[in-house]
Amino acid sequence: MKPIANLSQVQCDPGVLHFLPLGGSGEIGMNLNLYGIDGQWLIVDIGITFADDTTPPGIDVICPDISALQSIKESIVGIVITHAHEDHVGGLHYLWRQLKTPVYCTAFTASVARRKLGEAGLLDQVPVNEVLPGAFMELGPFGLEWVTLTHSIPEANALVIRAGEQTIFHTGDWKLDPDPVEGAHYDDRRLLELGELGIDCVVGDSTNATVDGWSGSEAECQKGLLEVIGQQTNRVAVTCFSSNTARLSSLGDVAHETGRRISVLGRSLFNYLQTAKATGYLRNFPPLVPTTDLDYLPRSEQLILATGSQGEPRAAMAKLAKGEHPDLLLEPDDTVVFSSKVIPGNEKKLDRLYDLLSNKKIHVITERDAPIHVSGHPCRDELRWLYRALRPSFVIPVHGEDRHMAAHADIAVELGFGASRVKNGDVLALTADGPKFVACVYAGRLGLSGTVLVPLSDRALSERRVLAVGGMVTVTLVLDKKARLMAAPQVQLIGVPSGELDHKVLIQNLVALVEDVLADQSSRVLQSDELLRETIQRDFGAMLRRWLGIKPRQLVNVVRV
Amino acid sequence: MKPIANLSQVQCDPGVLHFLPLGGSGEIGMNLNLYGIDGQWLIVDIGITFADDTTPPGIDVICPDISALQSIKESIVGIVITHAHEDHVGGLHYLWRQLKTPVYCTAFTASVARRKLGEAGLLDQVPVNEVLPGAFMELGPFGLEWVTLTHSIPEANALVIRAGEQTIFHTGDWKLDPDPVEGAHYDDRRLLELGELGIDCVVGDSTNATVDGWSGSEAECQKGLLEVIGQQTNRVAVTCFSSNTARLSSLGDVAHETGRRISVLGRSLFNYLQTAKATGYLRNFPPLVPTTDLDYLPRSEQLILATGSQGEPRAAMAKLAKGEHPDLLLEPDDTVVFSSKVIPGNEKKLDRLYDLLSNKKIHVITERDAPIHVSGHPCRDELRWLYRALRPSFVIPVHGEDRHMAAHADIAVELGFGASRVKNGDVLALTADGPKFVACVYAGRLGLSGTVLVPLSDRALSERRVLAVGGMVTVTLVLDKKARLMAAPQVQLIGVPSGELDHKVLIQNLVALVEDVLADQSSRVLQSDELLRETIQRDFGAMLRRWLGIKPRQLVNVVRV
Repeated sequence: MKPIANLSQVQCDPGVLHFLPLGGSGEIGMNLNLYGIDGQWLIVDIGITFADDTTPPGIDVICPDISALQSIKESIVGIVITHAHEDHVGGLHYLWRQLKTPVYCTAFTASVARRKLGEAGLLDQVPVNEVLPGAFMELGPFGLEWVTLTHSIPEANALVIRAGEQTIFHTGDWKLDPDPVEGAHYDDRRLLELGELGIDCVVGDSTNATVDGWSGSEAECQKGLLEVIGQQTNRVAVTCFSSNTARLSSLGDVAHETGRRISVLGRSLFNYLQTAKATGYLRNFPPLVPTTDLDYLPRSEQLILATGSQGEPRAAMAKLAKGEHPDLLLEPDDTVVFSSKVIPGNEKKLDRLYDLLSNKKIHVITERDAPIHVSGHPCRDELRWLYRALRPSFVIPVHGEDRHMAAHADIAVELGFGASRVKNGDVLALTADGPKFVACVYAGRLGLSGTVLVPLSDRALSERRVLAVGGMVTVTLVLDKKARLMAAPQVQLIGVPSGELDHKVLIQNLVALVEDVLADQSSRVLQSDELLRETIQRDFGAMLRRWLGIKPRQLVNVVRV
Repeated sequence: MKPIANLSQVQCDPGVLHFLPLGGSGEIGMNLNLYGIDGQWLIVDIGITFADDTTPPGIDVICPDISALQSIKESIVGIVITHAHEDHVGGLHYLWRQLKTPVYCTAFTASVARRKLGEAGLLDQVPVNEVLPGAFMELGPFGLEWVTLTHSIPEANALVIRAGEQTIFHTGDWKLDPDPVEGAHYDDRRLLELGELGIDCVVGDSTNATVDGWSGSEAECQKGLLEVIGQQTNRVAVTCFSSNTARLSSLGDVAHETGRRISVLGRSLFNYLQTAKATGYLRNFPPLVPTTDLDYLPRSEQLILATGSQGEPRAAMAKLAKGEHPDLLLEPDDTVVFSSKVIPGNEKKLDRLYDLLSNKKIHVITERDAPIHVSGHPCRDELRWLYRALRPSFVIPVHGEDRHMAAHADIAVELGFGASRVKNGDVLALTADGPKFVACVYAGRLGLSGTVLVPLSDRALSERRVLAVGGMVTVTLVLDKKARLMAAPQVQLIGVPSGELDHKVLIQNLVALVEDVLADQSSRVLQSDELLRETIQRDFGAMLRRWLGIKPRQLVNVVRV
């Protein structure tokens, strides 16, 4: 079934609330969800995701393709952002121009959004409205309630969305952290009340639905960090997710308790520290020591916070591991602590980092060695707790790869609730009898190439793969009116290794080949650019396959003067 | 210190045995080790490794660069291959032409090597000599003893190498499997005897030196498979490493005990089944059911063996998961069993496969869910057992990434033995006082591009990365003697996405830009191809960065007629 290009073409029953994910269902990343009723739509979250081994080369950042919204964009009442992680807010500055609608979020998220909008030169254009945690508000036909949950960033909000006959609980990212170290506790009283009032449907986070038990608490993690760092007698460098304010707060406390001073390496850490302080967090965080002053401190009194917990090659930790950081050189018997998990796909990159550090006799401590990281997403028992509190009629798992969403659905069913499977682009009617599939609209991915967003299916991106694998050969022919060569053919090889063959000799042979081919052709071929190109490409292709075993992209320029 | 290009330039003391790894130290893969004395050299293993995320595009297979051996190749007495895994034998058919020396290995390994040599058209040229397990032999100045160990492939041999004053125990890949299901048991009696006779140095496998305990037995794994497969009531498809004959044997037994018939998908499984049977293994393996006959069997009586345990996109399991296998369509409630580990770097690829299967309601069982895989490499307690048996003066860890080799060295030291760190290219003199660093020779990597081996540092390969990230723009100018354009400039963009800009309009603008640039130049610039190219590239570069934010590779062809 071919997806429908425009959401306006989908027949939605009047008075019925509809749900449409355009990103984040079937993947972890680029969350973008819509709720709609009577032709008016609300966007919840607008995130990005990052390239993996299936992404065309040259693309690092990926946004949801929202072309299906083009035809209804005047009917979008606003963009609501649940929290400040990249997969929820990171697409705002790339996609806002296509939407031009107000933004609503709490203060911390607003601060992060404004920084991004500022860097994109959009700060003056985008109305970012701050909402208080726990607030009630109306956006067109949607009644919204912001419910405070816990996560790995301050101000993780669930939304209660009331429209038509339906009350939806949209979880956003969450966990039940009994001691979140920084920021508000989750509002369990309100969750139980909401269960009493009646929730028809939960649309929720599936990330850890395959993981038994509870996700644990930031406070336990602080204890682990205190123990690990307390044992070290030399310099300690810690890397964690920069947006995890609670973790930074814990590290501030640990520094205090172990008699260390903190110095910070990496822009993203400075950004988030500033955002956190500006919005009322990290009140007890110790003053930073400039890296230039570190030499005045004994190694045993240094605690370095560094960006790059995923081994990102341009971040501080990778530079420290390579010994290439301009401000600090780690020394034998220093310790590096990864207070983070390994995001799938980064395993090899991190193994290489561990090796570089181990080679320099630097101790590496990861979450495998000590309890120094907890996940921000609900494990199976937390999901069960929530469903027992809310007692929804139906659950729609989102925010997960297929197996996470399947495991999430199984938990709902196990507890006696209904569960629906959804994929990006599915329009579901949220009826009293549960979600009903209505239609599927186009839901693609856009890659950021330079400053331009392009569909990942763009021909230019698949051409890059061909160039990457086989390189390129160009042939330039200048012919006169009678199709005679006016100069020697020019042949160039780019990205074509010649192995043991001499590159110059290879080129000479290819030039001779072109001349031979031309000499053999009828005037019909010689007079047609297209036939000439085809002939040369065929002969060139055969020759390069025979000599080098590869198929470079060929470009034959025919110029007639 | 710049590595020495030729091994012949290294000053080696007479009568002293030397050790030189050219691959496999600091990495898991492409093992190639040399032992030398008095100008004569022995090669132990000649493996390949596979591309990872750091490899230039278009390269899948990587060999050690043995250019340092060019100057001593007449003095190589032979290539000894410990066992038939790709990282020990896979480089033979790529590198043998550079060495032209006889090959020695046991029957199973010989059979695998001959198949590869046959496919490369080298079967008639390469003398592959079969050695019996436990054999003693002399190769030039080297006394060799083949000691039977266990691993995840039949006929894993350690080598005792006696030369000069030294007795070396080169482990190859090994584990202590108390019940290996197929093939010989490890020769513990001989290991203890060798310890009595005296071993000076062990050069050994570090793969699992960070893993506590024992690696476990193939027999336990068979029990796990029996339990898991016994519980299934529909079709079961199992994937494992094709070369693991014991695993295949176990699956044959499990099929028998659970009343299932086996059908096989994937060339590599057929190859290894054939090799195993031809060399005396798998005597009780049941006859295969052709996949074309599967329809005559109820699903509950089918056991499918499929290649592709690492999610390789062209292997059978990936095709089954996508529903694209020509011979078999898996159905809901079928079960797929991954009797294998995830090789680091393949996590994401496998997660996608699990998702595809979960989407089709096919159950997925991996080694996380049940004891259905054991490693073929020694864990920490097995290393301790070996060192207590052999009591070597020194240990040189090889076959591992740096942290594995470091952990391996720590175990040796913990037991009171010496340990030396080594990296590819290091020449060590194995003296009575332990290994001494002598020199470092060049040890690089060659990538297979098509049919040609090229250094990974080849400029053409880095050009491919530039093409991959930014695409390519070509400009063709035909100028007359007075440097006047004789035809409109031709501009072509390949792999350059134009985003919202119209591609044709973009080209028109670029053509106009070239014409403007030419109009502005002095005759000095116009008469110089080089200056003209530079000028156009500068202006083009600025324009493309401004319009699209990218830096394509530029090629300016200037033809003068």
